[in-house]
Amino acid sequence: MTIKYKDAGVDIDAGDELVERIKPLARSTRIPEVVADVGGFAGLCSIPSDIEEPLLVSGTDGVGTKLKIAFLTRRHDTVGIDLVAMCVNDVVTCGARPLFFLDYFGCGALDVGAAEAVISGIAEGCRQAGCALLGGETAELPGMYAAGEYDLAGFAVGVVGRRELLGPQRVARGDALIAVASTGLHSNGYSLARRVLLETLGLSVDSYVAELGATLGDVLLTPTRIYARTVSSLTKALGSDLHALCHVTGGGISGNLPRVLPRGTRARFRLDHERPPIFGLIARGGPVVEDELRRTFNLGVGLVVVLAADRVDVALATLAAAGERAWPAGEVIASDAAAPDVIIPQPGAMP
Amino acid sequence: MTIKYKDAGVDIDAGDELVERIKPLARSTRIPEVVADVGGFAGLCSIPSDIEEPLLVSGTDGVGTKLKIAFLTRRHDTVGIDLVAMCVNDVVTCGARPLFFLDYFGCGALDVGAAEAVISGIAEGCRQAGCALLGGETAELPGMYAAGEYDLAGFAVGVVGRRELLGPQRVARGDALIAVASTGLHSNGYSLARRVLLETLGLSVDSYVAELGATLGDVLLTPTRIYARTVSSLTKALGSDLHALCHVTGGGISGNLPRVLPRGTRARFRLDHERPPIFGLIARGGPVVEDELRRTFNLGVGLVVVLAADRVDVALATLAAAGERAWPAGEVIASDAAAPDVIIPQPGAMP
Repeated sequence: MTIKYKDAGVDIDAGDELVERIKPLARSTRIPEVVADVGGFAGLCSIPSDIEEPLLVSGTDGVGTKLKIAFLTRRHDTVGIDLVAMCVNDVVTCGARPLFFLDYFGCGALDVGAAEAVISGIAEGCRQAGCALLGGETAELPGMYAAGEYDLAGFAVGVVGRRELLGPQRVARGDALIAVASTGLHSNGYSLARRVLLETLGLSVDSYVAELGATLGDVLLTPTRIYARTVSSLTKALGSDLHALCHVTGGGISGNLPRVLPRGTRARFRLDHERPPIFGLIARGGPVVEDELRRTFNLGVGLVVVLAADRVDVALATLAAAGERAWPAGEVIASDAAAPDVIIPQPGAMP
Repeated sequence: MTIKYKDAGVDIDAGDELVERIKPLARSTRIPEVVADVGGFAGLCSIPSDIEEPLLVSGTDGVGTKLKIAFLTRRHDTVGIDLVAMCVNDVVTCGARPLFFLDYFGCGALDVGAAEAVISGIAEGCRQAGCALLGGETAELPGMYAAGEYDLAGFAVGVVGRRELLGPQRVARGDALIAVASTGLHSNGYSLARRVLLETLGLSVDSYVAELGATLGDVLLTPTRIYARTVSSLTKALGSDLHALCHVTGGGISGNLPRVLPRGTRARFRLDHERPPIFGLIARGGPVVEDELRRTFNLGVGLVVVLAADRVDVALATLAAAGERAWPAGEVIASDAAAPDVIIPQPGAMP
């Protein structure tokens, strides 16, 4: 008997079937810059003509073990939104407009239905971000993944005019900080969250948790907020008074806010807002001490806006109009520390 | 006792250590277009100013279960070259100049040494391709990967002038086909190759195989050839007489060559060259029949050049000067089949 590729665990027909199912999903994300029907081996995209001195801005990320919640609940249609969010939220911190996205889906044996659901989520994320799903790779690696499991990687490219580039070079002491609400854990800290919630507390994803007002699975699968359109509104409303944006990703506020601060400054950031209840559940359930929470989770803040202090009202109105919950949360102050950092005042200790 | 992120299997210190080790590797790939030291959350790159109507060309891919050979041999410094090759070889088929690359490295528990070796290979691949390693994500997903294993995804972006775009729109019947040698399996068909070589034949990666003149591990880990600089030479030498390029990736010659052919044509491709001995070993070892070999492996041809028939000599000289082994392998002919395909004449049956 002869051996075929399929005998070795790679099903080319299933892959072809998936490609057919992906086509309409990708089409639903098309933007005018996409150059379709050419470039058989690669995706093609033009550069928006209205951007002076365009710079390409790119980022890559995964979803982490939030995927394990999708496996447990067998709900695969939301982690794709998270994948786009994690990449695009990095890209838009530069003030960039997202242009296109590509995904990598790695699995042991291809489940066409689950993969299609994942990619439908990616397409939904791309539509939310206003970028095109320009390509992707579905890789079947027999023996590399457990049955029913997969990993995801995403890649986003955006474009920004050189003079519109946000970042530490625009930030100065006296700048104001605005916190923009996250939708929950986003896609960070799931290994710790799962350990506490599913192991220490013994909850299941199907458990209804009164304090959360929902099942644990629903709360843990809440998609990461995509801030692309919000950032676009902010750049239009504030122009050069918008100085920097901090995506609160792995490492929390303390780990990420210094990335947009220039030398000689630090952020004074008030953490006295009401946190989504999932964070309290994890804190008590571990228990996990406050310092560890802060360096692992976003604690309810998905994005920090750094801007000229006299434009806070305009920014808050713009954020509200974009559907965001946002509040003034601190300021940039002088510091003689070796590197920028974040100080979080005790609640009630200062104005 | 309280629970920390590290207890849940995520070691932020190891990740930070890896980031430090990656920095000089990424620096070694820098090209003038990279905008360094800004854009804390994303990579920044300008667009070469000498390209008229630039189009962005992007591709994503993985290495497949070639990774398993790296795990078995504990040699992690070459699969990164493969990762860059698989993405960049797709991108350059459009005639594009590679600009930048990003990688995703997913693992269960981070082995800093292995990850650094992988990324040193990625940096080597980027230098070979002439593109910048602009960013990456190292994801530690406890419980998702077996100990010592990881998956890789890569993402490449290049740029091409709209009028320099290669592809089926340039191809016509009468065009010539030139085969450019692969370095072996490249990164396709490893699940079948491993099944035959390691299971059916019971070889180990350390086995010296006389017919191969090397250990099996050495042959199976041979890096995928990166054709970026070769393609650049071809576009310079041939101009508009270079019509299309086919990356012989998963699906083999028959699966990929039709992707660059226009309707109403087919390729007549001679497969009578001497194949690298690894393919004969797999064929006899399976046994694997010729049809299955053809749709799984590149069989010694990594790239097919489609060009004006009167420029074959110039192309062959250019390829030789670029260090490639290449030979005339067929032509584009008329066809009334529903879609372009490839016919492979029996050896000796035609001129």
